[in-house]
Amino acid sequence: MSKLDETIQGLKYDAHGLIPAVIVDAQTQAVLMVAYMNDTALRQTIETGKTHFWSRSRQKYWMKGESSGHTQDVRAVYTDCDRDTVLIEVVQHGAACHDGYFSCFYRRLNDAGGWDVVAEKLFDPDEVYGKGS
Amino acid sequence: MSKLDETIQGLKYDAHGLIPAVIVDAQTQAVLMVAYMNDTALRQTIETGKTHFWSRSRQKYWMKGESSGHTQDVRAVYTDCDRDTVLIEVVQHGAACHDGYFSCFYRRLNDAGGWDVVAEKLFDPDEVYGKGS
Repeated sequence: MSKLDETIQGLKYDAHGLIPAVIVDAQTQAVLMVAYMNDTALRQTIETGKTHFWSRSRQKYWMKGESSGHTQDVRAVYTDCDRDTVLIEVVQHGAACHDGYFSCFYRRLNDAGGWDVVAEKLFDPDEVYGKGS
Repeated sequence: MSKLDETIQGLKYDAHGLIPAVIVDAQTQAVLMVAYMNDTALRQTIETGKTHFWSRSRQKYWMKGESSGHTQDVRAVYTDCDRDTVLIEVVQHGAACHDGYFSCFYRRLNDAGGWDVVAEKLFDPDEVYGKGS
């Protein structure tokens, strides 16, 4: 077993074999998205230098940007004290959010208890993913 | 039902009623920790202005800093496109990590496939939490 195998197996995955991955912009540290990896997706991410995830809703592997071209180049991989979360610094091509925003966290709670959209839309999802996607 | 009730109920919780919360430093955007909230912990967080979580291992509510004094003052609350994650900007008092580091993400993957500690320890956990904690 390689050192990397040991490191990947040494993380704590949930009952479904998944670990949350927080993806941050390498320059600004802004959180772009949170998605889930299993050991194979994490290995693909490290070996290819492009983020790969496991889709819980579609039950399949996906590379970020495989449809949109908005890939993420991995700059560094971190884990936390409990080894039950990974944090990945990336250079984001295009925008991270399928709704067209740079970050998926584009809604902020306002004083009235509702959400305000606080970011600018960078692309039209219909044009990038096709209508009805 | 208030607007805030609607907003909190409108988030997507997992089968255990939990939603991951990414806690970031309001000034630098550095990710400090990832922990879990249920609807009550989120409401407490918003209403008190201090982060509260649900401990999966201890099956109880906890306020960050209740033992250490290292509380987190809430500056803003965000959610993502899928409304299944929250991101909370805070002012961190002391350090976020119970291992003594400012951020829980103090380990970075190195080229040999192992973890390097890349942060400076700010306090001695034995002194803050007591020995054997």
